[in-house]
Amino acid sequence: MDIKVRMEGMEISQERIKVLKNEAGVALDRLWSGKEPMTGWVQDPLKQNEGNLEYMLDVADIVKQEAQLMVVIGVGGSYMGANAAIKALPKDEDGIEVRFAGINFCSAYHRELVEEAKRRETVICVISKSGNTLEVKAMFDIFKGVLREKYSSDTDIANHIIVITDEQTGSLRREAEEREYISFPVPRDIGGRYSVLTPVGLFPMAVAGIDIRQVLEGADLMAASPAWDHDGTDYAITRFLMMADGKSVEVLEFFDTRLACLGEWLKQLYGESEGKDGKGLFPVTLNFSTDLHSMGQFLQQGNPIFFETAVIVDDCGYDMIIPEGELKGRTLEELNKAVVKGAVEAHRKAGTTVVEIHIPQLTSYYYGQLIYFFETTCAVTAMIMGVNPFDQPGVEEYKEEMRKYLVYKEKV
Amino acid sequence: MDIKVRMEGMEISQERIKVLKNEAGVALDRLWSGKEPMTGWVQDPLKQNEGNLEYMLDVADIVKQEAQLMVVIGVGGSYMGANAAIKALPKDEDGIEVRFAGINFCSAYHRELVEEAKRRETVICVISKSGNTLEVKAMFDIFKGVLREKYSSDTDIANHIIVITDEQTGSLRREAEEREYISFPVPRDIGGRYSVLTPVGLFPMAVAGIDIRQVLEGADLMAASPAWDHDGTDYAITRFLMMADGKSVEVLEFFDTRLACLGEWLKQLYGESEGKDGKGLFPVTLNFSTDLHSMGQFLQQGNPIFFETAVIVDDCGYDMIIPEGELKGRTLEELNKAVVKGAVEAHRKAGTTVVEIHIPQLTSYYYGQLIYFFETTCAVTAMIMGVNPFDQPGVEEYKEEMRKYLVYKEKV
Repeated sequence: MDIKVRMEGMEISQERIKVLKNEAGVALDRLWSGKEPMTGWVQDPLKQNEGNLEYMLDVADIVKQEAQLMVVIGVGGSYMGANAAIKALPKDEDGIEVRFAGINFCSAYHRELVEEAKRRETVICVISKSGNTLEVKAMFDIFKGVLREKYSSDTDIANHIIVITDEQTGSLRREAEEREYISFPVPRDIGGRYSVLTPVGLFPMAVAGIDIRQVLEGADLMAASPAWDHDGTDYAITRFLMMADGKSVEVLEFFDTRLACLGEWLKQLYGESEGKDGKGLFPVTLNFSTDLHSMGQFLQQGNPIFFETAVIVDDCGYDMIIPEGELKGRTLEELNKAVVKGAVEAHRKAGTTVVEIHIPQLTSYYYGQLIYFFETTCAVTAMIMGVNPFDQPGVEEYKEEMRKYLVYKEKV
Repeated sequence: MDIKVRMEGMEISQERIKVLKNEAGVALDRLWSGKEPMTGWVQDPLKQNEGNLEYMLDVADIVKQEAQLMVVIGVGGSYMGANAAIKALPKDEDGIEVRFAGINFCSAYHRELVEEAKRRETVICVISKSGNTLEVKAMFDIFKGVLREKYSSDTDIANHIIVITDEQTGSLRREAEEREYISFPVPRDIGGRYSVLTPVGLFPMAVAGIDIRQVLEGADLMAASPAWDHDGTDYAITRFLMMADGKSVEVLEFFDTRLACLGEWLKQLYGESEGKDGKGLFPVTLNFSTDLHSMGQFLQQGNPIFFETAVIVDDCGYDMIIPEGELKGRTLEELNKAVVKGAVEAHRKAGTTVVEIHIPQLTSYYYGQLIYFFETTCAVTAMIMGVNPFDQPGVEEYKEEMRKYLVYKEKV
């Protein structure tokens, strides 16, 4: 694999490492066994998608030719993965703009997007495994209203809607069958936060112009890499050790603005996989150097409840030269590298554990590796912690409170 | 004041509250005494700015008439405050687009901005108190290169540059005098993270079309409000109590996308004011409902190291109606209100302290109140904690490490 993990200055007894490596090995075996529930994402990502890949690419080609904008309606796992990839990766010229709706109930955010969809040739792609997510329902109905203003016949409206949902059940699947929308399945044995390498993430990426086959090939390389004996498990073990030693926050740091939304995806992956039974590392994302000018003081001298994981792109692929003044002849890339070095060194000197995760370049192939790397380390850490990485028993509670309030309002 | 703080279900002994209210009163008296260093932001924000206000508005009018884009080069306190206000507040039609450079060393981010500045009629506004910030230096030289490509004479170039820096010292001040740039002062007795209501924040806001007089009038109302005896100090005291009771993270929550960048400003204000001597609450921002679909599980059942502060706009000012389907006739605003209610109730039921901060509407006047409210509560909490809210002794360390690396590279 091309992802490298570097940790310096950590002092852990060899015995403790041996025990944990063993536990990580057991966790990996369980993941790879194919017998654990909700581990459909683990084996051969490319092969898994083979049944849909050509069809996805064909539909994406039609959308790219016919439309100027695709509005994806989805939230959580049906939003974060595709959004992160689209912000991060190089796109072919024929890719079109993909924007996201239903990510909240904010009118200020959606008002402008609705106007945009009215003005431009727009396709709507609705993503919800269950079909029951309230944000998605609300925005789907609003965008159906937009399509109804633009097109006279039901067939025309249906031709501008694509659905990604459970293969068999749910209201969205029923509607897709009835009205003959184009649709792709969300595999039953893959949960929302692990679904970026299924049609949920891949189809929006393809429409944006990303080479999704390359992404899948990268993930495939990782799926049975012997490197898990080294770098992969080191990170998973370190995360567990930090927790065991009383750290409660993992600060995920990015030095390239293209990766800012990968941090949001990671927050869901980590937070939702581990944050249960009163356990878990609180995942926090910072974007450097911007946030060194806000949180740098705290990281250097504040309450030491955290450790840091720095995600570093070794070669950013650009070269912007400063043309005059004191820094004449230097490149931004060179200065950015100095920020990486400076922050990592200064924080280590302050006593903080800093894990470095290096990716050679921001290409689709390496990005596929990175996604699989994070999904697997997350699952392994959670299994060592003794929590189920694939459930989310607490997500219904605010929805129940919310529904009470909505029902109450109805009666008034 | 129009900002309301609501806390329910907190059980604290009356005696403890009495002691802390007293301490908060002492802190407020010190702030208001006019004798403490770096408290220039405390008294009469409107009066403070009187000397520059008309000039700022006149220059802003010229920029708005002559240019299509203003690129502000600044980072940390010279970026976060103006950016947050510009994202949050209503703008007059004659306001122009304001974008920020020098907020990092990312080429991917700046490449597009440089192209934009080449294409459009652009004014550059450089903000740095010391004039020594590396990001700002680098980008100022890059944008000078852009101006040099566009204009032949030095006078023409100088006419497209505005500088906000220390009144007397520093390289930026010297350059401004020599080349006769238009300039505004950064008051000496106000630190970067408290400078949003000085030219640092106000001038970019004015160019974007924000009514900065209204912002200042809002802040002025707060500057000596008797309400500090109630809501204002309650929040400051609660923050201290949470820390004293072992909480290490404050989750700052927003339910309106327009406030997302206010959270970034708050992270610097809180993190840099309190994160020293091994103390401080780690400030984290979440935007709901989006992040309920990623961090909701953790907030409900994860490691309970946090408390929550929800910033709520009571009337968002829009009304988007769902035109069909199950939710027909409901508004997004109504559903968003249900999210607020649902999240606050569910998290309180899970045992988490949730402070609600209510602002009636997102207007410039109320926003001015909110800024002053946060600055003051932050300073009061820090003073009760026994740390200096106005220094940042740890921010040089990564820069030193960084410089070592840059010097090393030079020798190679």
